Amino acid sequence: MTKVLNGIAASDGIAAAKAYMLVQPDLSFEEKTIDNPDAEIERLSAAVETSKQELEVIKQKATENLGAEEAQVFEAHLTILSDPELFGQINDKIKNDKVNAEAALKSVTDMFIQMFEAMEDNAYMQERAGDIRDVTKRVIGHLLGVSIPNPALINEEVVIVAHDLTPSDTAQLDRNFVKGFITDIGGRTSHSAIMSRTLEIPAVVGSGNATSEISEGQMVIIDGLDGQALVEPTDEELEDYKARAKAFADQKAEWKLLKDAKSVTADGKEVKLAANIGTPKDVEGANDNGAEAVGLFRSEFLYMDASELPSEEDQFKAYKAAVEGMNGKQVVVRTMDIGGDKELPYLPLPEEQNPFLGYRAIRISLDRQDIFRTQLRALLRASHYGSLAIMFPMIATVQEFKDAKAIFEEEKAKLVADGVPVSDDIEVGMMMEVPAAAMVADKLAKYVDFFSIGTNDLIGYSMAADRGNEKISYLYQPYNPSILRLIKNTIEASHKEGKWTGMCGEMAGDQVAVPILLGLGLDEFSMSATSILKTRSLLKTLDSKKMEELADKAVNDCETADEVVELVNQYTK
Amino acid sequence: MTKVLNGIAASDGIAAAKAYMLVQPDLSFEEKTIDNPDAEIERLSAAVETSKQELEVIKQKATENLGAEEAQVFEAHLTILSDPELFGQINDKIKNDKVNAEAALKSVTDMFIQMFEAMEDNAYMQERAGDIRDVTKRVIGHLLGVSIPNPALINEEVVIVAHDLTPSDTAQLDRNFVKGFITDIGGRTSHSAIMSRTLEIPAVVGSGNATSEISEGQMVIIDGLDGQALVEPTDEELEDYKARAKAFADQKAEWKLLKDAKSVTADGKEVKLAANIGTPKDVEGANDNGAEAVGLFRSEFLYMDASELPSEEDQFKAYKAAVEGMNGKQVVVRTMDIGGDKELPYLPLPEEQNPFLGYRAIRISLDRQDIFRTQLRALLRASHYGSLAIMFPMIATVQEFKDAKAIFEEEKAKLVADGVPVSDDIEVGMMMEVPAAAMVADKLAKYVDFFSIGTNDLIGYSMAADRGNEKISYLYQPYNPSILRLIKNTIEASHKEGKWTGMCGEMAGDQVAVPILLGLGLDEFSMSATSILKTRSLLKTLDSKKMEELADKAVNDCETADEVVELVNQYTK
Repeated sequence: MTKVLNGIAASDGIAAAKAYMLVQPDLSFEEKTIDNPDAEIERLSAAVETSKQELEVIKQKATENLGAEEAQVFEAHLTILSDPELFGQINDKIKNDKVNAEAALKSVTDMFIQMFEAMEDNAYMQERAGDIRDVTKRVIGHLLGVSIPNPALINEEVVIVAHDLTPSDTAQLDRNFVKGFITDIGGRTSHSAIMSRTLEIPAVVGSGNATSEISEGQMVIIDGLDGQALVEPTDEELEDYKARAKAFADQKAEWKLLKDAKSVTADGKEVKLAANIGTPKDVEGANDNGAEAVGLFRSEFLYMDASELPSEEDQFKAYKAAVEGMNGKQVVVRTMDIGGDKELPYLPLPEEQNPFLGYRAIRISLDRQDIFRTQLRALLRASHYGSLAIMFPMIATVQEFKDAKAIFEEEKAKLVADGVPVSDDIEVGMMMEVPAAAMVADKLAKYVDFFSIGTNDLIGYSMAADRGNEKISYLYQPYNPSILRLIKNTIEASHKEGKWTGMCGEMAGDQVAVPILLGLGLDEFSMSATSILKTRSLLKTLDSKKMEELADKAVNDCETADEVVELVNQYTK
Repeated sequence: MTKVLNGIAASDGIAAAKAYMLVQPDLSFEEKTIDNPDAEIERLSAAVETSKQELEVIKQKATENLGAEEAQVFEAHLTILSDPELFGQINDKIKNDKVNAEAALKSVTDMFIQMFEAMEDNAYMQERAGDIRDVTKRVIGHLLGVSIPNPALINEEVVIVAHDLTPSDTAQLDRNFVKGFITDIGGRTSHSAIMSRTLEIPAVVGSGNATSEISEGQMVIIDGLDGQALVEPTDEELEDYKARAKAFADQKAEWKLLKDAKSVTADGKEVKLAANIGTPKDVEGANDNGAEAVGLFRSEFLYMDASELPSEEDQFKAYKAAVEGMNGKQVVVRTMDIGGDKELPYLPLPEEQNPFLGYRAIRISLDRQDIFRTQLRALLRASHYGSLAIMFPMIATVQEFKDAKAIFEEEKAKLVADGVPVSDDIEVGMMMEVPAAAMVADKLAKYVDFFSIGTNDLIGYSMAADRGNEKISYLYQPYNPSILRLIKNTIEASHKEGKWTGMCGEMAGDQVAVPILLGLGLDEFSMSATSILKTRSLLKTLDSKKMEELADKAVNDCETADEVVELVNQYTK
């Protein structure tokens, strides 16, 4: 009988293909005393040789499919396999201690890993530790005759089955062959889920048991619309899947027609649908999906993909490319949002017990004004080439916003005095993601040009729950009336001062949330580009007055998130 | 000239005594090749012997002054010094590598420390790592002829000067000799500050540079009222200090007269002043300081000071002792609040990236109902012996409170069915410390009997700032209008449903906050016992109507915490 797995719908679409188990095999072994060290050294050498050949192929494949940068990690692995010092020590251990190759390899590499990991403020050495760990696994796999998954070598259509997908896993995947994926853990806002939407691959996350319920090569249907997976489906089910996949493709085609349409409700209320982007390259996707603006341009890529602080010139080019690419449509750039879980190898941050509650985002910018002013100058110069707006992340108090704005004004005045062309109507706003800020939205609204609600952090802080923490993931409740009230506070406060409010968190593209947000008066919905057309289509079916009524009830009458969802279902069925 | 150091007034009172530098000395050394290993081994052996003798005295002293439990750590140190395996390895290293004793000792102990620390989920081994580190420092000190501070050996009146005081430092201090202290770092709510108030020792924290500006043996006046320290004062200043110390003693004597008085404002409004306690032993201090209730009985001591989960019987005895000790005055017990920064060796918690936003308090209780139900039964049984109330920590949603309350009702029904005597009017409330909960206080007020605002966490989550993190300590702003608004929401919501609101965070005893809290309608102020009489005295000077006006302005008109403080000064001068 067909096995049905239930999980969380992470990315729209339906796909069917054979399962590819991206699962770590069992690499346990026993430490043994051996009689013939030379034979053991020979065994090790053969396993290393096989690993090298494998890595050469993988590197080649990865370079072709993903680019030279993504393939570099395999070059690092090859270098380790050719390290005479490392293998000298391992061979010595086999000889002196008369232990099997697995044990000698593990013992020596563990020592290096531990040593490198102990260098806690050295991100480079930390990465090397990870590389040694990966390489050791591969060689032990060959010693044991166990095969290690090599996602970069996938060359037929598959559905990936994994406990979780790390950014480095996804970097190795070839979109042409990976038709969908399913994971054991994660929620709608986990890395894997966000990645699946960016790649437009149907995905189910948080299924609990996919890796134990599915076996290599089994046919799997991934239903990213309902959050289900069917393992070894019947022919009928496969037929049904094809029909539904076609229906979804048709629907997508219909959505495509809305690309140049306005974002307007059934009763004619207009809002703005915008895209969240990570690099200037993403502007193309934003335009293709009919974005009316970029509601969030994360500037972190400039800092993360670099080996030193990005220069003013490099930043200027990136911002200019984005605003020019959007052809006069507004691009809201968020200033540096590092810290928290985002570290920079060249900017050591203090080790913190609770990094999400620590030195991050605007807190760093106000402290390290050298970095902040460089970014502001680059932004100011780019403002001349299109419609650019700036927002500060993690503002908690009125004072912080005033301080940041003052620095902005200083840099602007300096550039103007130097005769550099700078736009005269740059909107300067802030992310609304700290509960304390939402509580004084009325005060902040006097100083900002706009608010942009960052729901991921706002929910996390309000609920005092780290959304990456599985044990308490039930507390990530976007629809909880408490969160809706903070959103309402923010929107109303902005309108009272003639300002606008956008939202750039995951919630803005969530089809359950959109009716409420519309009712609450949200002006701009900024989301993954791939969600825009679907949302524009949804808006056409909604009556704004009725949604106001819905929002009122959700905010005033509901006690729990479940009650809110039920209410939305009543109002939108 | 007298040197004046400015810091934060952490604990009332004025004291003068010679400085005792609780500062790590410089223990750096050079690794040297030596010619005579035997002589080097002899040197090491002598240093170990001296260290042992010293530790025997310290252990003896600590047992007398602080009790056998606190002295155990020194027993552990002695055991390490007698470990033949450890010192065998060090001696071998001296012989084989021909290095000096310092280098051999450091190299071998570092290896053990690293090994033990790598066992991350083993709290016992982690502690052993700390012990080895401490012992190594002591022996190296003797090898270098440098003296290590031994706070347990203090036998004359001193003022402690330290970078920061750890709980283990304070555990070694003899109250009879320690007259005051000053630290470089920390704020009003740091561990050292809280400890100083509990011990009623004048203290200044966060002075920035006390350890570099003060030298061993210098006379220091600690002014815990104004947050100042005078180093090498003139005779006149010493006279002045004595006069002010006397005035403060007189004031304390006057406050003492209020011990049995009601807590009432100038215009006759009554509120309740209660004590926060950590163990049943603290009941005495609460009564001595005129507490009208225990507003917070932290039940963690039962879990922290144990090697396994406390039995129902042990808990019952502790709760019974507390309610009986309070003679019919209410005792609010907070159910288990572990997780965050509080770990239990026998209950391994998942390693978390942001423990403050993780699996803690009621989240553990709802998940581990075995532990929760045991505690509730003990509480229910104790309720028969006095006036007991229960509150749940870290409630974030209405659902969580309903779930916890339902479990409470189940256990109550079972006990009643079994004929166990149980009070019929146990109030069941919750801590208000998660912003999301404060946003739906109106909904929660329908289900609770009372709220107790936990300001430390409420401020931390609202501001998204870990108060233990020095880099962003500026964001710990109890007077920020955002925080005051959350407090106001909570109090108003409770009153609308005929319930009451208390506060058991640091803020409840803060002399700047009290006027505002009174104006906001707070019903119960629960604080360190030693702050109660001072607060009762302050209340007598306040007009409740005028404070309502103050609170209104603070909540509605002020933009920043500084503006609120200024307003309070205007209204209370």
